[in-house]
Amino acid sequence: MIVILKENPNPRQLDSLMTWLKSKGLEIHKSVGATHTLLGLIGDTSSVDMNLIKALDIVEDVTRISEPYKNANRKFHPRDTVIEVGNTKIGGGSLTLIAGPCSVESEEQICEVAQRVKESGATLLRGGAFKPRTSPYAFQGLKAEGIRLLKKARELTGLPIVTEIMDADLLPMFDDVDIIQVGARNMQNFELLRRLGKIDKPILLKRGLSATYEELLMSAEYIMAGGNERVILCERGIRTFETYTRNTLDIAAIPVLKTLSHLPVIVDPSHATGRSKLVEPLSYAAAAAGADGLIIEVHNDPEHALCDGPQSLTPEAFDRIAKNLQTMFGRNAVAEAQG
Amino acid sequence: MIVILKENPNPRQLDSLMTWLKSKGLEIHKSVGATHTLLGLIGDTSSVDMNLIKALDIVEDVTRISEPYKNANRKFHPRDTVIEVGNTKIGGGSLTLIAGPCSVESEEQICEVAQRVKESGATLLRGGAFKPRTSPYAFQGLKAEGIRLLKKARELTGLPIVTEIMDADLLPMFDDVDIIQVGARNMQNFELLRRLGKIDKPILLKRGLSATYEELLMSAEYIMAGGNERVILCERGIRTFETYTRNTLDIAAIPVLKTLSHLPVIVDPSHATGRSKLVEPLSYAAAAAGADGLIIEVHNDPEHALCDGPQSLTPEAFDRIAKNLQTMFGRNAVAEAQG
Amino acid sequence: MIVILKENPNPRQLDSLMTWLKSKGLEIHKSVGATHTLLGLIGDTSSVDMNLIKALDIVEDVTRISEPYKNANRKFHPRDTVIEVGNTKIGGGSLTLIAGPCSVESEEQICEVAQRVKESGATLLRGGAFKPRTSPYAFQGLKAEGIRLLKKARELTGLPIVTEIMDADLLPMFDDVDIIQVGARNMQNFELLRRLGKIDKPILLKRGLSATYEELLMSAEYIMAGGNERVILCERGIRTFETYTRNTLDIAAIPVLKTLSHLPVIVDPSHATGRSKLVEPLSYAAAAAGADGLIIEVHNDPEHALCDGPQSLTPEAFDRIAKNLQTMFGRNAVAEAQG
Amino acid sequence: MIVILKENPNPRQLDSLMTWLKSKGLEIHKSVGATHTLLGLIGDTSSVDMNLIKALDIVEDVTRISEPYKNANRKFHPRDTVIEVGNTKIGGGSLTLIAGPCSVESEEQICEVAQRVKESGATLLRGGAFKPRTSPYAFQGLKAEGIRLLKKARELTGLPIVTEIMDADLLPMFDDVDIIQVGARNMQNFELLRRLGKIDKPILLKRGLSATYEELLMSAEYIMAGGNERVILCERGIRTFETYTRNTLDIAAIPVLKTLSHLPVIVDPSHATGRSKLVEPLSYAAAAAGADGLIIEVHNDPEHALCDGPQSLTPEAFDRIAKNLQTMFGRNAVAEAQG
Repeated sequence: MIVILKENPNPRQLDSLMTWLKSKGLEIHKSVGATHTLLGLIGDTSSVDMNLIKALDIVEDVTRISEPYKNANRKFHPRDTVIEVGNTKIGGGSLTLIAGPCSVESEEQICEVAQRVKESGATLLRGGAFKPRTSPYAFQGLKAEGIRLLKKARELTGLPIVTEIMDADLLPMFDDVDIIQVGARNMQNFELLRRLGKIDKPILLKRGLSATYEELLMSAEYIMAGGNERVILCERGIRTFETYTRNTLDIAAIPVLKTLSHLPVIVDPSHATGRSKLVEPLSYAAAAAGADGLIIEVHNDPEHALCDGPQSLTPEAFDRIAKNLQTMFGRNAVAEAQG
Repeated sequence: MIVILKENPNPRQLDSLMTWLKSKGLEIHKSVGATHTLLGLIGDTSSVDMNLIKALDIVEDVTRISEPYKNANRKFHPRDTVIEVGNTKIGGGSLTLIAGPCSVESEEQICEVAQRVKESGATLLRGGAFKPRTSPYAFQGLKAEGIRLLKKARELTGLPIVTEIMDADLLPMFDDVDIIQVGARNMQNFELLRRLGKIDKPILLKRGLSATYEELLMSAEYIMAGGNERVILCERGIRTFETYTRNTLDIAAIPVLKTLSHLPVIVDPSHATGRSKLVEPLSYAAAAAGADGLIIEVHNDPEHALCDGPQSLTPEAFDRIAKNLQTMFGRNAVAEAQG
Repeated sequence: MIVILKENPNPRQLDSLMTWLKSKGLEIHKSVGATHTLLGLIGDTSSVDMNLIKALDIVEDVTRISEPYKNANRKFHPRDTVIEVGNTKIGGGSLTLIAGPCSVESEEQICEVAQRVKESGATLLRGGAFKPRTSPYAFQGLKAEGIRLLKKARELTGLPIVTEIMDADLLPMFDDVDIIQVGARNMQNFELLRRLGKIDKPILLKRGLSATYEELLMSAEYIMAGGNERVILCERGIRTFETYTRNTLDIAAIPVLKTLSHLPVIVDPSHATGRSKLVEPLSYAAAAAGADGLIIEVHNDPEHALCDGPQSLTPEAFDRIAKNLQTMFGRNAVAEAQG
Repeated sequence: MIVILKENPNPRQLDSLMTWLKSKGLEIHKSVGATHTLLGLIGDTSSVDMNLIKALDIVEDVTRISEPYKNANRKFHPRDTVIEVGNTKIGGGSLTLIAGPCSVESEEQICEVAQRVKESGATLLRGGAFKPRTSPYAFQGLKAEGIRLLKKARELTGLPIVTEIMDADLLPMFDDVDIIQVGARNMQNFELLRRLGKIDKPILLKRGLSATYEELLMSAEYIMAGGNERVILCERGIRTFETYTRNTLDIAAIPVLKTLSHLPVIVDPSHATGRSKLVEPLSYAAAAAGADGLIIEVHNDPEHALCDGPQSLTPEAFDRIAKNLQTMFGRNAVAEAQG
């Protein structure tokens, strides 16, 4: 970290700053330039709040040289992290398809969708048991029963299951879930992240609606700092001024996150815009930009599609997309797994 | 709610939509226009997801006529909610000053700040015991010990205390806290909100970094739906493209929220920009725009200000602002309470 | 357009509204519902300002049924517009590559880049003669001389040229340019758009930094309303809170704009993020999402890359991307033109 | 400017960078630290593009020490700029009220509004003759006739007039206008700015919808670099994700711009949200935050308010606000002028 001081800094304030920095265990390399003095901080600066120093009266600017995340940082882990779940894997070159309904509604529904998406090439089943809903009056999911039904579908198809947790207290119910999802609105629920750092299960971490790349990686770091290194990053659209789509898919997040981190990066093209017609082009775009996987909403009953999100596809549409992805990009988790 | 159908809607899909709407207990008033057909939904639409209907193939647009929140809605509660805590009150015309350090650090620190801000006119003491930090490596607060020290300061000064909760599990520790704060990053931690709806204590609910007015009110509704009607809304800056300040204070939030809701609206001018020099003008602006109160960071040790946020004021600066507010706006919680 | 009135609207205000609407040549279809009254406006509402009506005291909400743009609207022109320039075409299924340096600097530079990008498959040459610069002290381009050099490069290679105009006054200098570009910062320079509507030359219209899809299409409409129907829409990144990249590429803009409009949609992956390393993945993503073309910055002198934008590629990198696009997507302007 | 190099920079690239920097007339102070090397650039860096250097492979980060604007910079002009127009002045402690209709519509209208707002304390008359409209089909203003009518109103009331220009070609028509306004959408119409730098008339420059503080100041710099130092900055709301209001007023812009620059800063509370009911609280907030003036829309015919913007006030409402401002803040342009 380099601190650029203002011209003629108040000596007492400078002294106070240097004492404080030393108390953090940092060595200071002072460099006096033509007009400005710089302080180079040597040591572990990950616990130093850059914004705090930046706002001091005597400081012109502060620049981090090393990122504040270590476990998630590609610099220290140059090789891609590949996460294996059952027969499938996420990361390292394959394009894993995760599919399933927005909410688990019945045994019939989840089992049928599971079979259909498996036939099309999905290797993981998603489905919401606990649903984060903006309104307290809206349907909040089947909860424990939803998880029970997901397991039924797993039994039937062999597909490992992914489902969202909303509070650390619910962890015991997720004992037998294969991948635990943290939703966008909980990306900075630090208590939840800390608790997930203590378990031995992959975590699918969604980017918050207005979270920066660094903040997403810091949230991954929370989990990893606890010892759980199996984190999957998920870009699912950010909030912008555009109102035609519910969110704006940040496609550059894929190559950027893969440069900064060794963790796998998947994309949710369903929530990214909230419009089912856009799932297809965005899926191809995400694969083309190097995503390690896609998590796509698929419902099985077009006649009653209302129960499902407007961003859901029919199994037929999902099948077409999965086949096209296979043709265009020649990489697919099924193929990999079978290989 | 009014649903505007596209021209020549597919009859089967229309049928499916109408059946589903009726299953939600709604009556439908169909109106056939020159080119388009409209469906007026009569009944309680608060559990109907507007985005979901909007995205149907046969639907052109959907408009809510009644807001999706009831308890928080001024239409049904025209009079201002006034929340009394100890000798002070929030809402209904007074300008309540809440002040204190970013983090509780020691008994000496919190007690001195408490006395100073009380002398200046603050009627509530704030201080962080559990600190939400972006980095897992940063100081996370004194936790239980922090709450113990806040109570010490309350004993000394008589000021009721406000402090932030980060997880529902911690609720027992907050038994003796006067107002519980929910931070911006937890505004949509629905499990936490639900739990806070069951307790008998005022909740200070901060607006999320990219939350709309409606979303903030829906989060208040979560708490109120559980039976706890004492919610204080807090505007604390939103995230925009501007990088000079950490956030952008949305000053219009004050009159808008007070129009839509009967709940008190306070402003946090410290976190709104992250720069202490802007606290003063933003405090005056917030008061001028009709805020029911201000929550301001004050630290007591300019020499070691680093331990505190860069947005903190000295007690002297806070005193000047408090006095100017009194002169300019002639309304102040102390005055009210003493009156 | 449908106007939803509030309950019990003030009769005088309603009268005034109806009189005003009729004065605009609209017929009004009034529909009285259980609680609310709706006004269906029949006729040409394109000159009616929706926001204006929405803000009236007696109005709850307003919904447009027909978009405010006609010439740019796919509803009235279902077939893709294909724009032919020299031997190449833009739109209708081909993937046109437009490439060249950020700024034209010398005859040698522009001619070499032109030859290199032509060999790789580009069918149009771009290069800035007039440069919009945030600072009045920065280099503003070679101006007339820059256009002269572009023509030299065209003579040599046969590639039609694309270059940016910054003011309608400069139009005479652009007489011999093949495609005139309007930059993001001029997207709502309505006088310029109006003037470009009167000429017979394709216009490449870039989306403003915070322009919605509808606003971009309305700017296209300005040009088309004047008689010039050859408009190419260009997504080049929007401004968000993320600071790692200069802008955020809105990949969904491609399928959305192509649904709403018949005009060709191209993507600028160079300015979208301002980082040359991201040009490759974003180019593939744009092609996969259905873009009709790409406009990419290429410089010829890595040793002096500073003169060029940091988002520029070397000719070698461009060649690799062009070849991969050909392999992956099997569609390319060269192929089309030669076919 | 300080350039922080990456560890072990490629020597040829470093050489190329140093040569280029020297060619810009800069002296380089090289400082070798424990892990990183820094380059301090001494001299006039205002023509150096920071983003360009930042994106080089060998560069970790770049920090400006001196702002890229000089004429607009308070560092070099510590005293407030006060702009005198007729009997009124803008800047330096007074609160100037500029008021008038959105569009000039008739002699009767503009003259009546002018008289009413003058009586209430406005010292400048605003009114649109050329209207920037998103739709080419919407009313574009009375143009030359509008300016003629504004002059009539000035003759009658003595109020100097402010009106918007949309293209440099129109300048001859603005010869007799007192203050020329540049709209938000033209804030980076650099040709227009350059031309306005050559005339001897105050310019009211509105902040673009997604322009940073620095970009606004750089646009002011464009005008000032040409010799015209009389620029008035205007905050008028920025574009965010919130849709309840048309824009979001950035109240912190007032103290920030006044810290960075010596130019007067005024606020447009009418366009900031597009809702007339919010004009009053936002006017008080802007005054409380230190604005040098307000520009407010006032129409004279509530029965036909539709012709005017939904953000317009009646003369009665404006009168109440003006009186309250006088009472609350004890500063007013009329008072100052008469004093």
